[in-house]
Amino acid sequence: MIKREKVDTVIIGAGPGGYVAALRGSQLKKKVALIEEDKVGGTCTNYGCIPTKFLLHETQVLAEAKRSPRIKGREALQFDWAEAQKTRQKIIDRLVKGVEFLLEKNGVKLIKGKARFGDKRLISVVSPEEEILIEAEKVILATGSRAAELSCLQADGRKVLTSREVLELKEPPSSLIIIGAGAIGLEMGSIFSRVGTKVIILEILPRPLPGSDRQLAERLGRILKRQGIEIQTEMRVEKAEVLSGGVRLSGTCLKTNSPFSLEADLVLLAAGRRPNSEIVRDVDSRLCGRGGFVQVNQFLETAWKDVYAVGDLIGGKLLAHKAMHEGILAMENACGAHQVLEPQNIPLAVFTDPELASVGWTEEEAQEIGLRPRVSVFPLQASGRAVAMEKTEGLVKIVADEAGKIIGAHILSPSASEMIGEMTLAVRLGLKLEDIGRTIHVHPTLSEALSEVSLKAMNQALHLLND
Amino acid sequence: MIKREKVDTVIIGAGPGGYVAALRGSQLKKKVALIEEDKVGGTCTNYGCIPTKFLLHETQVLAEAKRSPRIKGREALQFDWAEAQKTRQKIIDRLVKGVEFLLEKNGVKLIKGKARFGDKRLISVVSPEEEILIEAEKVILATGSRAAELSCLQADGRKVLTSREVLELKEPPSSLIIIGAGAIGLEMGSIFSRVGTKVIILEILPRPLPGSDRQLAERLGRILKRQGIEIQTEMRVEKAEVLSGGVRLSGTCLKTNSPFSLEADLVLLAAGRRPNSEIVRDVDSRLCGRGGFVQVNQFLETAWKDVYAVGDLIGGKLLAHKAMHEGILAMENACGAHQVLEPQNIPLAVFTDPELASVGWTEEEAQEIGLRPRVSVFPLQASGRAVAMEKTEGLVKIVADEAGKIIGAHILSPSASEMIGEMTLAVRLGLKLEDIGRTIHVHPTLSEALSEVSLKAMNQALHLLND
Repeated sequence: MIKREKVDTVIIGAGPGGYVAALRGSQLKKKVALIEEDKVGGTCTNYGCIPTKFLLHETQVLAEAKRSPRIKGREALQFDWAEAQKTRQKIIDRLVKGVEFLLEKNGVKLIKGKARFGDKRLISVVSPEEEILIEAEKVILATGSRAAELSCLQADGRKVLTSREVLELKEPPSSLIIIGAGAIGLEMGSIFSRVGTKVIILEILPRPLPGSDRQLAERLGRILKRQGIEIQTEMRVEKAEVLSGGVRLSGTCLKTNSPFSLEADLVLLAAGRRPNSEIVRDVDSRLCGRGGFVQVNQFLETAWKDVYAVGDLIGGKLLAHKAMHEGILAMENACGAHQVLEPQNIPLAVFTDPELASVGWTEEEAQEIGLRPRVSVFPLQASGRAVAMEKTEGLVKIVADEAGKIIGAHILSPSASEMIGEMTLAVRLGLKLEDIGRTIHVHPTLSEALSEVSLKAMNQALHLLND
Repeated sequence: MIKREKVDTVIIGAGPGGYVAALRGSQLKKKVALIEEDKVGGTCTNYGCIPTKFLLHETQVLAEAKRSPRIKGREALQFDWAEAQKTRQKIIDRLVKGVEFLLEKNGVKLIKGKARFGDKRLISVVSPEEEILIEAEKVILATGSRAAELSCLQADGRKVLTSREVLELKEPPSSLIIIGAGAIGLEMGSIFSRVGTKVIILEILPRPLPGSDRQLAERLGRILKRQGIEIQTEMRVEKAEVLSGGVRLSGTCLKTNSPFSLEADLVLLAAGRRPNSEIVRDVDSRLCGRGGFVQVNQFLETAWKDVYAVGDLIGGKLLAHKAMHEGILAMENACGAHQVLEPQNIPLAVFTDPELASVGWTEEEAQEIGLRPRVSVFPLQASGRAVAMEKTEGLVKIVADEAGKIIGAHILSPSASEMIGEMTLAVRLGLKLEDIGRTIHVHPTLSEALSEVSLKAMNQALHLLND
């Protein structure tokens, strides 16, 4: 027997975009159904942000202890991967339960099963136990993404892994080739390198973190190399052979136009992600654009009336906080608002050591769109806190327009992911250099660099020579 | 022979207040002389902020490694205090040289020696080598402060120490009594406790960090106790005896009105500081107010025409960044501006684990001045990043006025000292709850708690139940 449900809004996918949309809907007094075929919390909580940040934090504690000449006995330290795996799962379970609790207390109807479009506002959900037919005024699609595969190399879950499986390994491999030097590649490379795996990262483009500020990305690449991670750029993988003891990759080094061949125990695919857009593509392929991402207008509406899409599914920066923010906007728009997404106000962070965080325009982008940006840089060698932490490799860069309005900020520093909040606020509110420059920052902190770099752009830096 | 110099502005004291004033003066094309009898960088660089932050960072690396069940071999770790002392001095030397370099390149005339007022704008400086008589249009006093002593207990540099000497110990004591549970007491207590010293902190008032948000300060007290630091409040020290093997303190527990007697290897005086105001007090005692602090008006002008004072010397929060900011304002005012100091915009931070950082009004202060504040709290148990770091003891509190304008923020969290920058900006610019609430913060970060706590005050929190 098919059960029937009628709700105001049905949301497909209970990752960050979906569950946040559901919670916002509940605040707006809507009856909301949330459908998930796997686990609440989505990739972020279960297989992405959360487990990586746990492992990054833990392995960094190890790495910091191992490199401090002030700590006796550090040479003997070893990472207990099995113990870490237990804690990883405990942390995930706690957060998933937390989200389930919030959904329940907010009266969101959570339905486990695989959704399929009937009519455009009629969704059927099939689970082993039952089939439910849901009729809704509005639909929000939030089905997320999965690791992209190469034409020559598919994930097999054994030797060729995605970020999901690599986090669940019973023990770290002795060698690992990571394909892709984006955020996932660099974070995974950091984790495994710190626990003793020999890590090689292959990137087809000329530098790590394509799209980021060039100077910062290149500097981060050099820092990671000094930490023992081999990053090879302009490397095109063309052929993969799974051997009994590992994987052999071969291809062409585009710099020298010469062939390469590399072997490792395991390979991690971190060369982009593709959208889980089958749910609409199978019904109406016109909804999807380049790369299969669902196309939306500035209000997050798809080509189908009353159907919205958010998160990784619609492309752009594939980030959990972008998905959450879009989830809020889509739900508010489904309730009659006209909220517009402003991509320039979405920060990003890479949780390496140091972290790289960024918001707004890069110097290169600002030039490309014809602005004549005022750019200034403050190196952490001039930061008292960085010197006291012996972490002076980073730098902070600010991009302002000709009138001194801040249009971008790029931070390579410990705690950059926390410091970028202030600059996101500045970019979002259109603040000026003096607004940050004259705001008092605690001494000694790394965030003093934010005022210094702003003052520098006005030739008023204090702890750095002005031009 | 007495040398004579004529400058636009003479600054007495080359700590953060003084040297920053000098650099700003140089930017404003003034001829500046800067007088220092000890070391450039003052207490902050040489004996305060910088060496404590180095030791806090290093000992925290140790403490984190020692408590992670994922790190094998952690039990055997020990801190190499002697090695740390070498690095402490190297870091200080590097930063002092950095400031000297900046002063030189900016054309500031640095004069080493003891300053004395002749006439109000005529300063004589005596050093072993020479005597210089400096005539200036304007004078900025920035002579700083030193540890206050108790009537029953004076520092002797051997068993009864100030923060300056305790940082330079050849080895950590096996036991240490710290008098005063302010920022210095808690930070020093953390450092020594982490390297194995048995630490007792005695505070005469009913809670640690008097003047801070009550809930956060009390919670931090409990957290530090769990870290092994004994904090005893309402303890009045009345008598001290230096013994051959240590110090015995006795006094009254004000809670129970019963006597106490405690012994330790060493005692650290951290019960407030007093101003180095002899330079004016000896000439005209009317310049000084309560506690000997030099009195200034809102433009940082003293009762003497064309003489300004900044930093610890004028009291208020005794913080390096307050001194720097006042140095800038005083120099700009000496050059004809009318910059006013706004104490509500000065953040503070205590670098314990977790850190406590604060700006603007506390809940208690807002009530005292008759506001009806909207207060909301976000516990870090609801933060994905805190859960992934297993550091969920902290909380974030926001204080807004009835119209939703943010008037205070109080953060107990790792990285609080970096996160407070965003809230300082908010308080300074008079931003509203929705300005922070709707600003996208990177997931997963601790600073997401800033938007959550703002949303909570509007009943729109996502990762926490609303009322």
